[in-house]
Amino acid sequence: MGFDLIHTPAALIDHAQMSHNIARMQARMDGLGVRFRPHVKTTKCVPIVREQIAAGACGITVSTLKEAEQFFAEGIVDILYAVGMVPAKLPQAAALLERGCALKLIVDNVESAQAITEFGRTRHQAFEVWLEIDTDQHRSGLAPEGAALLEVARALVGEDANPGGSAQGGARLGGVMTHAGSSYALSTPEALQAMAEQERAGCVRAAQRLRAAGLPCPVVSVGSTPTALSARQLDGVTEVRAGVYVFFDLVMANVGVCAPTDIALSVLTTVIGHQREKGWALVDAGWMAMSRDRGTQAQGRDYGYGLVCDALGQPLDAYVMSSANQEHGIVAHSIEPDHAIVERFPVGTQLRILPNHACATGAQFPQYEVLETDGAVQSWPRFYGW
Amino acid sequence: MGFDLIHTPAALIDHAQMSHNIARMQARMDGLGVRFRPHVKTTKCVPIVREQIAAGACGITVSTLKEAEQFFAEGIVDILYAVGMVPAKLPQAAALLERGCALKLIVDNVESAQAITEFGRTRHQAFEVWLEIDTDQHRSGLAPEGAALLEVARALVGEDANPGGSAQGGARLGGVMTHAGSSYALSTPEALQAMAEQERAGCVRAAQRLRAAGLPCPVVSVGSTPTALSARQLDGVTEVRAGVYVFFDLVMANVGVCAPTDIALSVLTTVIGHQREKGWALVDAGWMAMSRDRGTQAQGRDYGYGLVCDALGQPLDAYVMSSANQEHGIVAHSIEPDHAIVERFPVGTQLRILPNHACATGAQFPQYEVLETDGAVQSWPRFYGW
Repeated sequence: MGFDLIHTPAALIDHAQMSHNIARMQARMDGLGVRFRPHVKTTKCVPIVREQIAAGACGITVSTLKEAEQFFAEGIVDILYAVGMVPAKLPQAAALLERGCALKLIVDNVESAQAITEFGRTRHQAFEVWLEIDTDQHRSGLAPEGAALLEVARALVGEDANPGGSAQGGARLGGVMTHAGSSYALSTPEALQAMAEQERAGCVRAAQRLRAAGLPCPVVSVGSTPTALSARQLDGVTEVRAGVYVFFDLVMANVGVCAPTDIALSVLTTVIGHQREKGWALVDAGWMAMSRDRGTQAQGRDYGYGLVCDALGQPLDAYVMSSANQEHGIVAHSIEPDHAIVERFPVGTQLRILPNHACATGAQFPQYEVLETDGAVQSWPRFYGW
Repeated sequence: MGFDLIHTPAALIDHAQMSHNIARMQARMDGLGVRFRPHVKTTKCVPIVREQIAAGACGITVSTLKEAEQFFAEGIVDILYAVGMVPAKLPQAAALLERGCALKLIVDNVESAQAITEFGRTRHQAFEVWLEIDTDQHRSGLAPEGAALLEVARALVGEDANPGGSAQGGARLGGVMTHAGSSYALSTPEALQAMAEQERAGCVRAAQRLRAAGLPCPVVSVGSTPTALSARQLDGVTEVRAGVYVFFDLVMANVGVCAPTDIALSVLTTVIGHQREKGWALVDAGWMAMSRDRGTQAQGRDYGYGLVCDALGQPLDAYVMSSANQEHGIVAHSIEPDHAIVERFPVGTQLRILPNHACATGAQFPQYEVLETDGAVQSWPRFYGW
């Protein structure tokens, strides 16, 4: 069986599986008593984000102001821009505010906080700003116990104890947020639960320090797909963020928060030739389709550029895309050369490749081909760029 | 100095450097007495390809039929589709032929050759087909000395000694082509010259065997950027192909065919924060901007996700993008933590990052920002997808 009308390579979504993933996460968040704010950088696709909202999401997280603009144009108002704000992007953010977008910015340093406050005063706009907290030392953010936490907060709300923000504009301290990205490097339930608790505790501690200093901190936002699916309790947290759970991928399977059969995104490809002696089938999906992401390289199981499935999506566990050029992939048995690969996967055979990293693979395609359980296929556009 | 009007991250082209790279390659090809057919998969950008044609290119090489369609629409007629042809793509190729495109296909197996021939006969179209030759065992192609070479050729032209192709359509054998992609793994002039000679000799040998069997083989096409810039003589070769030379990149610098200062593509980014103790500057270009390509990882010098330059493009040799998340890059000294990095690169500082692999980095952007020597900047769109 194949998909004769789909040009390969194509980014396929198993719609039923994706809906299952969305429902699973939302149910978990509901059970933990927190709001859920999906990170839409994974898909950049309006129909998918609509499904996440319909399932109960309170708003969205974005990684670029272009995402904010695109989704605000679709009627989504509550948007967190989760990359540290710099002065040059303030006019773009201000334009969103003026049009009614409830955009929240994040900062982790005094310079950016001052720039936001000054720009807001000049424009008579009050930016809602959350403080980025570093709970796992993996990237950016303020230490929960450090002096800088209060310094940055005061750069936003001023020393004049006007914590709600000035009527003349400036900035308003909306809360704290953190992302325990180092959870991606873990692979046992115990370690994941511990990291989820570390993420929760560090962010709640930062909120407590702000409140103890007389500063407002209504929102406490945490999350990553691994910690969101591992947290045992989220006391003090008001909302969780996660992105890749919507599709899952092989990195998440190695982390242990999904099975390969839970992965809703794959790349459909066609066999274009062979090297029989080497046991290779050449396919028309290379790294331009899969992305160059080799996220499973340092994990328990290295899938090369992806795990091979038949055209119906059934994993052929022993076969991986072992190597890739721009528009060529090499499919091979992962343990020993399959000298019958010419007969197994003749020229023209369609295969699906499960990706290492769904965010990176999806970004290579202008649209997704969405498979319904009745066999129907529809195209959903996605955008890219900044 | 910065580029206040350019939103970061942005893909910058140094136009003068790019023109220099184009002229350098064309002059080398002219000197070796061969035609030159640039691979446009690197840029997918019309104004750049126009410059390559204006410099003397005989036509173009593409990696997708979408590239063929886009560039044919711009008036470029002589196009080689350099990925093995499969039956499902024949209607798309036939449509290009019908509209007057001098499209050439490649095959390396009897099944595809037969499918092309049969489809052509049904449509009364004669596809020009080149045989893909494997001269370095790195990917696809027919062995120059193997029996399959003549079998595939005869599947195209038939056993009836009608080598020029049938008036009733089918296929026409146009030549042989090879790509010594393993040249990317080399790093000495001697090894590169030897690989260029191996690529030349293997492809010429395949042509000789076809001609000795009474089959036509007007074109002998070879190339990769490293071998094109290393070949000492190209006797028997009629044309050369190369792609990444137009920009160059850090992989090519490690191979030794360019200096870092020859690289015409960089990613402009802005510092958004720091981790002083670690010596990190956080920037707003992550792997979504740089791509996940870590091509220098296994080379003589590993540049992480890229080499850091100041806003004017001057390499700061000791600083690299050591790590990347989707929209965050970590810039650090490559040898020891720079605890003065907060003062060296304050929030808002613009930096340029030279990429590991220009083909992969360019593909992440909807357009290039092109810097002229007089300081003017223009945007050139590029396309993506299939």
